[in-house]
Amino acid sequence: MDSTTNSIRQIAVGFLGMGNIGAGVWRLIGEMQDEIASREGVEFAVKKVLVRDLLKRRGAAVPKELLTTNADDVLNDPGIALVVEALGGEQPAAEYIRRALIAGKSVVTANKLALATHWKELLETAHETGSCLYFEPGVCGAIPVIRTVTDSLQANRIERLYGIINGTTNYILSQMSAKDASYADALFDAQQLGLAEPDPTADVEGGDAACKLSILSTLAFRAHVPLEGLFRRGITTITPIDVSYGRELGYAIKLLAVAKRDGNKVQARVHPTFVPLSHPLASVNGSLNAVYLYGHACGELMLYGRGAGDAPTASAVVSDMLAAARTDCSNASAAYRMTGAVEMDTDWESRYFIRLQAVDQPGVLGAIAGILGRHGVSIASMRQTTGEGRAPLLFVTHMAREKDVRAALGEIDESLATIENVIYVEEGL
Amino acid sequence: MDSTTNSIRQIAVGFLGMGNIGAGVWRLIGEMQDEIASREGVEFAVKKVLVRDLLKRRGAAVPKELLTTNADDVLNDPGIALVVEALGGEQPAAEYIRRALIAGKSVVTANKLALATHWKELLETAHETGSCLYFEPGVCGAIPVIRTVTDSLQANRIERLYGIINGTTNYILSQMSAKDASYADALFDAQQLGLAEPDPTADVEGGDAACKLSILSTLAFRAHVPLEGLFRRGITTITPIDVSYGRELGYAIKLLAVAKRDGNKVQARVHPTFVPLSHPLASVNGSLNAVYLYGHACGELMLYGRGAGDAPTASAVVSDMLAAARTDCSNASAAYRMTGAVEMDTDWESRYFIRLQAVDQPGVLGAIAGILGRHGVSIASMRQTTGEGRAPLLFVTHMAREKDVRAALGEIDESLATIENVIYVEEGL
Repeated sequence: MDSTTNSIRQIAVGFLGMGNIGAGVWRLIGEMQDEIASREGVEFAVKKVLVRDLLKRRGAAVPKELLTTNADDVLNDPGIALVVEALGGEQPAAEYIRRALIAGKSVVTANKLALATHWKELLETAHETGSCLYFEPGVCGAIPVIRTVTDSLQANRIERLYGIINGTTNYILSQMSAKDASYADALFDAQQLGLAEPDPTADVEGGDAACKLSILSTLAFRAHVPLEGLFRRGITTITPIDVSYGRELGYAIKLLAVAKRDGNKVQARVHPTFVPLSHPLASVNGSLNAVYLYGHACGELMLYGRGAGDAPTASAVVSDMLAAARTDCSNASAAYRMTGAVEMDTDWESRYFIRLQAVDQPGVLGAIAGILGRHGVSIASMRQTTGEGRAPLLFVTHMAREKDVRAALGEIDESLATIENVIYVEEGL
Repeated sequence: MDSTTNSIRQIAVGFLGMGNIGAGVWRLIGEMQDEIASREGVEFAVKKVLVRDLLKRRGAAVPKELLTTNADDVLNDPGIALVVEALGGEQPAAEYIRRALIAGKSVVTANKLALATHWKELLETAHETGSCLYFEPGVCGAIPVIRTVTDSLQANRIERLYGIINGTTNYILSQMSAKDASYADALFDAQQLGLAEPDPTADVEGGDAACKLSILSTLAFRAHVPLEGLFRRGITTITPIDVSYGRELGYAIKLLAVAKRDGNKVQARVHPTFVPLSHPLASVNGSLNAVYLYGHACGELMLYGRGAGDAPTASAVVSDMLAAARTDCSNASAAYRMTGAVEMDTDWESRYFIRLQAVDQPGVLGAIAGILGRHGVSIASMRQTTGEGRAPLLFVTHMAREKDVRAALGEIDESLATIENVIYVEEGL
């Protein structure tokens, strides 16, 4: 098992971007290069690094002569075999990835937004050019969810998957649960810790999770689940009342990504969800991520870990760089091959937790219950608190259809109540 | 993304064994062959199947003409490129695997015993011949622990790992916890369900878990952790008293596999362990398995799922068959390359739960506490119940060294107490 006799292949690498992720990758490659060379027979030699500002201080000691502000220096250099895209944002990242693939380079990207919004174009480009595109770091950081689906579950029909795939919102909801904090306080706390952006929209409104779910469910179901086909609701309306009532009922609150396939119908959605406290996903707290899925052969499978952060993301980037460094990367393109088209199903069945501020008058409760009943939405449990003028009214329904619930809620007008929140209740996950 | 234009490569396969696992693989390949062919471009054509008894009924409709009782028909057939070893047992399985590798065949095995006991010989044979050896199904069934360590965590120094890697014992301990059942009743229950063998020794004494831990920690630490270097204690002495006292203290009881690396020192052990109820491993119940590890870049990572059963095991076998079917399988051998030798450290530090039956006389408690104290083992909490003649005495220690605890317990003789159980308490996992 002596490895000194193995020859070391040098792979010329270009970076697009040298922010937190790029610098994390740079440092990890530097730190591990001897071990990677001796074990994997590969050495990464960085030739060019695209940056926006040549003079900015960075988290990695990149020699000045490698820096460029011209993307062509990376994309048009035939000597560069592997491109690490760590720019973030949809454009120009997506266009650069496409150009790199056309130029025959392998690409590793951590960019879920560019990938989810340009999925077909990028995957088709990779397929046509035979170039390899890897994106493990773009979906749940260090957790090997992509590789598990593509390299370990090939013999499975994956029927459903559930994910806590946004660390920011999970941190906020965990804080709200552990400390009875308000959404605003928990968000502020996350921002102080660098876990939430100054503008937290992409995280808290579910956009980031939707990108990851689109990619993950597309691979799991082997059929494109387009970003625009996803239902999405954020966590900004969650209050301590929702959290504590959920706990009383035996649930933890999570921003859950849900995807289910039934024949050619696929439902994919990201929304605040009550998860039974006994379920492993309920214990995924703080900024941790997890993906829980069912395959017809493997049964239930959960992967849990760090979905973000420089070092965890770099861990996944380097593993993808090594996958790309294999002489034959045809499996990448095989793994992403789709087996058929599916239809998005937006009329799923679920249980629903509904929080209203009801007008505190006789007959209001009966009227609301009547509206729900007329739409076939039956009530499993209810809690009413009387107050002055308006009072919180909390329902949990039995299994009901999304469209029926929406129709019923659409009929509840201001004279009866204002609808403050709808939380999905996943029992059978 | 039309895949009809891709040519399908046929891989000639030989089976060694057609019991539950072999039949599960046969069925899964049959069921998924069209999808695997269209997506992966590979078709498995089974040429020969070694069985002990040609006439036995099997769980798969294998044509009679494929069956043989002569291993040479598989191992000496140059047309067979890939061998699936599903015989179980150390020999002749290990010898057959070795012969197949020497003959240049790829081998997929679910046999942790053959692999752990013949690790060096088999890995060196694979390395020398350039043949590929895969064993994902041998360690935790459908859970991709091997592939995660070899293909996703290459840039990580893995510092410690914890596993619930034997489903039988986890089922028994979960039953004891959930139902206050005795060990004997829970074992009987497991046997009725087919989760435990009529002779349960390999499971309940920790032998099966030790084989898996040896393999897993060897790959994680990139240094051979030999089976014979593992400390092992089984679950047969666990009683409802231990379980309920643990729960009161905030712990779940698990047969935990523990491996830690500190420089060139490695500790590896399998023993009943109290795990904090808040830790994700505490929620791994029934026959489910999980592996929880820390890498210096990825941080904490947990994989959870079905560690046994025909279909989950077949899921992993087929994924390994597809890995072997790649034109370049050199990564397999790279992934198993060791980077250095380590020394087994048997004097770890832990907290200990110690249950004694103490002689119910004045001064006995003081004498026992004195012995522990003289060996530097300090007591964190204690419970004494008076009874007739002998009474249960339960200690939890602060962090102490294994050798000190053993030395202290060695001094407690029959005139003071009988030592009934020692359970490790893992706090910092």
